Amino acid sequence: MTGRQPFRTIWLKTDDASVVQIIDQRALPHDFVVHDVASYRDGVFAIREMLVRGAPLIGATAAWSLYLAALESRRGDQRSYLRRAADELAQTRPTAVNLRWALDRVLAAVDAAAEDDDLVATTRREAEAICGDDIEICKSIGRHGLPLIAEISARKNGSPVNVLTHCNAGALATVDWGTATAPIYMAQQSGIDVHVWVDETRPRNQGSQLTAWELAQRGVPHTLIVDNAGGHLMQHGEVDLCLTGTDRTTASGDVANKIGTYLKALAAHDNEVPFYVALPSTTIDWDADDGLDDILIEERGRDEVAIVSGVVDGLVREVSTIGTATPVRNIAFDVTPGRLVTGLITERGICDASRAGLARLFPERASS
Amino acid sequence: MTGRQPFRTIWLKTDDASVVQIIDQRALPHDFVVHDVASYRDGVFAIREMLVRGAPLIGATAAWSLYLAALESRRGDQRSYLRRAADELAQTRPTAVNLRWALDRVLAAVDAAAEDDDLVATTRREAEAICGDDIEICKSIGRHGLPLIAEISARKNGSPVNVLTHCNAGALATVDWGTATAPIYMAQQSGIDVHVWVDETRPRNQGSQLTAWELAQRGVPHTLIVDNAGGHLMQHGEVDLCLTGTDRTTASGDVANKIGTYLKALAAHDNEVPFYVALPSTTIDWDADDGLDDILIEERGRDEVAIVSGVVDGLVREVSTIGTATPVRNIAFDVTPGRLVTGLITERGICDASRAGLARLFPERASS
Repeated sequence: MTGRQPFRTIWLKTDDASVVQIIDQRALPHDFVVHDVASYRDGVFAIREMLVRGAPLIGATAAWSLYLAALESRRGDQRSYLRRAADELAQTRPTAVNLRWALDRVLAAVDAAAEDDDLVATTRREAEAICGDDIEICKSIGRHGLPLIAEISARKNGSPVNVLTHCNAGALATVDWGTATAPIYMAQQSGIDVHVWVDETRPRNQGSQLTAWELAQRGVPHTLIVDNAGGHLMQHGEVDLCLTGTDRTTASGDVANKIGTYLKALAAHDNEVPFYVALPSTTIDWDADDGLDDILIEERGRDEVAIVSGVVDGLVREVSTIGTATPVRNIAFDVTPGRLVTGLITERGICDASRAGLARLFPERASS
Repeated sequence: MTGRQPFRTIWLKTDDASVVQIIDQRALPHDFVVHDVASYRDGVFAIREMLVRGAPLIGATAAWSLYLAALESRRGDQRSYLRRAADELAQTRPTAVNLRWALDRVLAAVDAAAEDDDLVATTRREAEAICGDDIEICKSIGRHGLPLIAEISARKNGSPVNVLTHCNAGALATVDWGTATAPIYMAQQSGIDVHVWVDETRPRNQGSQLTAWELAQRGVPHTLIVDNAGGHLMQHGEVDLCLTGTDRTTASGDVANKIGTYLKALAAHDNEVPFYVALPSTTIDWDADDGLDDILIEERGRDEVAIVSGVVDGLVREVSTIGTATPVRNIAFDVTPGRLVTGLITERGICDASRAGLARLFPERASS
């Protein structure tokens, strides 16, 4: 985890296979805290309280939580215990589609297991496979996205390629590599000069507290900006490419992502800056069509807006930044219509953010 | 200043005419602190360190600072002392056009004064006139903007009119009434049900810390949102009208305002939400044409982004929210092209945000 090595965000504890370990991302960038997840309810807590966040990592955490549930219920009715655990896990973050997907994948493996199979082994194998697949998917996204950055670099004769990103769709949001960051890390490894504008990402500051930290760990040049600033930078030619992740994409190419993504897509469109969204196909909701109508948008509590954590006198403290009586509305995501998205970068390649584009890459799903 | 009375933001101290008093807006909403400005250099400090902000109040503070400079130089070469003070004051905030305008107005009165006139009286008279004019201008803006809100209220059969505003273009940014808030306060006084979405306004949180405070003081229903949220609300029909102020408007109707205004204007345009900008004509820069080319955009320090003030253990403290090595770029304003602005609300009425629109209302300036 130290230095500039790629790192994983979830793993089985070295000496104790009854404990899953994660990075408590709430403590970053001030402290690096490894957190034990020792029961599926610890997993519910970790997802709901956002010790882990990012669609792929939420899915991986949910899968490992079912492994813990299998351990807990070894002497009882494991199958019904696992179903109850899955229901509870599914409720934690309603917008993240591959939370549901990961749970269903583990449950399908359980359903397929023979009566006398060890469901602990079954769920562990499936959780490990989900993590392994996630790494491979992120690397594929990186390979497909890399040419976008390489072409801009060539056009600019090697001057730094300025990429703007919103929220954290980095290694910290996945098991490794990240989605939106994978092309950036591959560009860096290819010797391309790349610089990232990091949106602060209010209200939870995932940009300033996670993306900036992660990019620094890997030695990628970056500059933090407030969420308000991206439009100005695009107006002045200081952004070559926008690259974000997504929590859920509809079959028609509409993209739900961290609140504020839509505003950046509007600015990119207005200034002819390419706007790409990187996603594992597990985050595509094939049953959803119009993103504004069909995607349930999570609203969260007042404290996320009112309270900011930071360092004072060497300690991490939480401060209340607003008047105690000020009413707050805290909407977690917004939907960027496919018309504003230049392309979707998936593990199978890049396509238009449209029904036809997605159908070309995923014919087996689009026809269903 | 207490209760729901309209209040002034700058005044001569009751018992001591050598001291100007202001509200130290940096302490809001946690503390209400009256700050003494006892020399023109105190005025420089108050403007530069943003104890006062908002184009009209900056102008008023600059004017009163010249009065203090006249007091200080009573026994010396007052005219050259005043010029030096004006030069220093003009440097404090390069984007605020009516800072320069207010200084020029006081200096013109000084130039027009007879050799043996008391320049203390001259500058005081002019500072008082600037404040009085500002109040009248804001009230005129309110009267012209009120019908926009009244019409929406009628169309919605009295359901609350949802107005979104960015930054603070309220009474705290002017001497009284505010610019963008004047139509809102007049709507409230007319018995119209109005509700304000208050953008947090990173990095300095003028929305969450000033606008929300001011609206609460005057009993106007409001809800704080992060800067990222306005687009989503507009997509879902929850904003009837956007109303902001401006620091500088070009002769062609381009509007420089707090960073992020452009993003809200894009969202308003994309969702057919009317987007109005309220301004005293003193903030029009008749020499500027294309806002993107002709308006110098101020960049400010790292700490405004990195450090947030808030209450912890009952005390107002500053916390550092980001990694100590994270690079930051802090751009204070952006430019919203006139094409995205539905109309400009001035003290003379509403016009298109265009050269022709402004020329119709201000024929004497447009022809020059």
